[in-house]
Amino acid sequence: MPYFDAASAAPLHPVARQALLAALDEGWADPARLYREGRRARLLLDAAREAAAAEVGCRPDELVFTPSGTRALHDGIAGALTGRRRTGRHLVVSAVEHSAVLHAGEALEADGGSVTRVAVDRTGRVAAGEYAAALRPDTALAALQSANHEVGTEQPVAEVAGACRAAGVPLLVDAAQSLGWGPVPGGWSLLTASAHKWGGPPGVGLLAVRKGVRFAARGPVDERESGRAPGFPDLPAVVAAAASLRAVRAEAAAEAARLRELVDRVRARVPELVPDVEVVGDPVRRLPHLVTFSCLYVDGEALLHALDREGFSVSSGSSCTSSTLEPSHVLRAMGVLSEGNVRVSLPWGTGEADVARFLDVLPRVVAEVRGHLGAPSEARPVVTGDELVVDALGKRCPIPVIELAKVFGDVPVGGLVTVLSDDEAARLDIPAWCGMRGQEYVGERPVEGGVAYTVRRRS
Amino acid sequence: MPYFDAASAAPLHPVARQALLAALDEGWADPARLYREGRRARLLLDAAREAAAAEVGCRPDELVFTPSGTRALHDGIAGALTGRRRTGRHLVVSAVEHSAVLHAGEALEADGGSVTRVAVDRTGRVAAGEYAAALRPDTALAALQSANHEVGTEQPVAEVAGACRAAGVPLLVDAAQSLGWGPVPGGWSLLTASAHKWGGPPGVGLLAVRKGVRFAARGPVDERESGRAPGFPDLPAVVAAAASLRAVRAEAAAEAARLRELVDRVRARVPELVPDVEVVGDPVRRLPHLVTFSCLYVDGEALLHALDREGFSVSSGSSCTSSTLEPSHVLRAMGVLSEGNVRVSLPWGTGEADVARFLDVLPRVVAEVRGHLGAPSEARPVVTGDELVVDALGKRCPIPVIELAKVFGDVPVGGLVTVLSDDEAARLDIPAWCGMRGQEYVGERPVEGGVAYTVRRRS
Repeated sequence: MPYFDAASAAPLHPVARQALLAALDEGWADPARLYREGRRARLLLDAAREAAAAEVGCRPDELVFTPSGTRALHDGIAGALTGRRRTGRHLVVSAVEHSAVLHAGEALEADGGSVTRVAVDRTGRVAAGEYAAALRPDTALAALQSANHEVGTEQPVAEVAGACRAAGVPLLVDAAQSLGWGPVPGGWSLLTASAHKWGGPPGVGLLAVRKGVRFAARGPVDERESGRAPGFPDLPAVVAAAASLRAVRAEAAAEAARLRELVDRVRARVPELVPDVEVVGDPVRRLPHLVTFSCLYVDGEALLHALDREGFSVSSGSSCTSSTLEPSHVLRAMGVLSEGNVRVSLPWGTGEADVARFLDVLPRVVAEVRGHLGAPSEARPVVTGDELVVDALGKRCPIPVIELAKVFGDVPVGGLVTVLSDDEAARLDIPAWCGMRGQEYVGERPVEGGVAYTVRRRS
Repeated sequence: MPYFDAASAAPLHPVARQALLAALDEGWADPARLYREGRRARLLLDAAREAAAAEVGCRPDELVFTPSGTRALHDGIAGALTGRRRTGRHLVVSAVEHSAVLHAGEALEADGGSVTRVAVDRTGRVAAGEYAAALRPDTALAALQSANHEVGTEQPVAEVAGACRAAGVPLLVDAAQSLGWGPVPGGWSLLTASAHKWGGPPGVGLLAVRKGVRFAARGPVDERESGRAPGFPDLPAVVAAAASLRAVRAEAAAEAARLRELVDRVRARVPELVPDVEVVGDPVRRLPHLVTFSCLYVDGEALLHALDREGFSVSSGSSCTSSTLEPSHVLRAMGVLSEGNVRVSLPWGTGEADVARFLDVLPRVVAEVRGHLGAPSEARPVVTGDELVVDALGKRCPIPVIELAKVFGDVPVGGLVTVLSDDEAARLDIPAWCGMRGQEYVGERPVEGGVAYTVRRRS
């Protein structure tokens, strides 16, 4: 049963499991205590810190273990902002950071600070020059992911780090998706990561803060982890996290090359096998194991369920999934289609046969979901002046786009079709549909109960 | 090799180990995902929450899992304070709470709020009436531990909860030390606990917030755990925590009775076997497994090391330990001796033979440590007027008290001895020595380089 959602969480690596079991026996005591069980725990903690620091590329005393990648981001951003409060209260991030970064930015704004969200291109990448231009004299911190978690695109971290250094602004790199594949190129000031992305256990994040970076932990003081991560350390999980990081790194180059080929195959074959598909993200400068595509006229949740019934576990940035009401902020920032969105992220060791079977199953599954949605619509298009208006108010993604496509042939070239919709996804998906179809997106205007999106027929 | 520091961390319970292993296989995926691995994880998470809530005595939707007891306290206190910010910014705590609570109070003060620390008696207990009197119209939150982590004394939680309810103030009960032994009596508004105290794994705390209690999580928003504990949940550890809580509770009554007898034996025998010892904490209304005593004229760190060499792992609230420069705030608040302090906390299943051997070894170990410290002093007492003055500046605990005891017989009844000391422990230990010896503590005054503590000979 192929699991293709490694970017969410990877199954425990065998080395992690072994290390965890050993550390449950040897490392349950308080490493701050003087007696033998405490000293033994301290040795394990020190060794884990040294191993993880070596893979991160920092000194052991620059690295602390946090309870998750999210906590590493929250606490790392808060600490860096507080440490440089005298400089200012401005934060620069990319528009496609992990939600933990964006939420930290919102918390800063709610507290009176300000945030610049640097836009990305259609592949999901920031331009280093544009990022550099966002740095200001009052910028306390800049944050940039090493690679995007939804579309896999790598960011120009080294160039942005250079610009930040020149401006005297510390750069925090969220390396959650990439650290298992290799170290982040130098020049960062703070780095965060999450062990369960590389086959370590949940419950462990990393926060590295370079010596000399101003940092003031927020919240109540606590003596653990250099005062940067309060609470009793989860030592067995920490030991397992460090051991598995070392293990996956030893095989990263070979495994990356292997998975990159499998992903290349998905990227090439999906548009051949499935009509009306957009594969998103940079095709080359990307994570080795991750590919994302969107299927027109498909309900994301229905597609996930259909793939799940076929034995494939994938995730989606569509708005039409039970856990979210809005389309992924990443896809939105990229300006690409969000409906029928599927993220495939291959765990270590994924076999070729599983990918082949996925490519085999996908066309039929998409066709089935489209079939269910393609039933005759009750919406009656209305002609208003030289404009054909489709009322899709109250209809969820992907219905508004389906309704648009259905009537589009009814207007002459040069004619207008307007779709009324109150689904947030339409704002993204109607322009994306125009881009895919070579039609002209005219614009949107508010109407009672929703928004009117207007498209001009070009061909 | 007997480990007697269960109040710091207990070895993993066999049920916890078994549950952890199973959940590593079944529960590594993201419980927020729709595919089968995610649904399986969700089922495990829901079952763990139901089991833990049943033991806590709350509804499952009132309980969230945090990465540690410390984080539960930090986040619980912050959330309750923020939720009731309009009422005021005053916090009431006992003087003997866990440092995580006291540090949260200091953070509140640094942020412009205020804290009342309710004093305790010599057994370490607050008077419910005194606690009630500390509640004010602007009190946002009150916090009280169920039982003290250093001396085992139980607090009058039910009475204090009644007073809080009458005043309309939510009460947070830190049940870290007691939850494995039984539910906290009703009436609390928030409750926190820590799994590795009852044989669960590290990495899991509990935070329960009763419906209707105003609560506003601080920091960046996050959708996990009802928005109260950000980050990917450590599901295997959570499952193990819930399973072991249920397991220890099933045997708690019998095991508590058994350990209570062993502790009673320690409480009775130690003062018979070791001269100049003070057993502290309430002898009856206390945790079943914990006893603390202090030995005059003993260096706490040396005593821990000597006991460690004999195979006994205990902790200490003395200032003379490598991890701390100040004597325990608990012992200080109680006004009892802190030097040569030893906390014995028996893990589940501790055998009678281990306790007997401890009682066998302790007198010799204390005598040895005293022997090392009892070497002739270089300090020459000086007679100033009718006062004998001993200069112990630059000497660490327990030397100041040893010097006092050495010369005390040299003054007549009614005469004064003054000890000069710059060790913070002397402020606690010299009055405590007077109490133990029936001598009169006259008071202290600042002198160059330290403090002068004066004692009058009564007998």
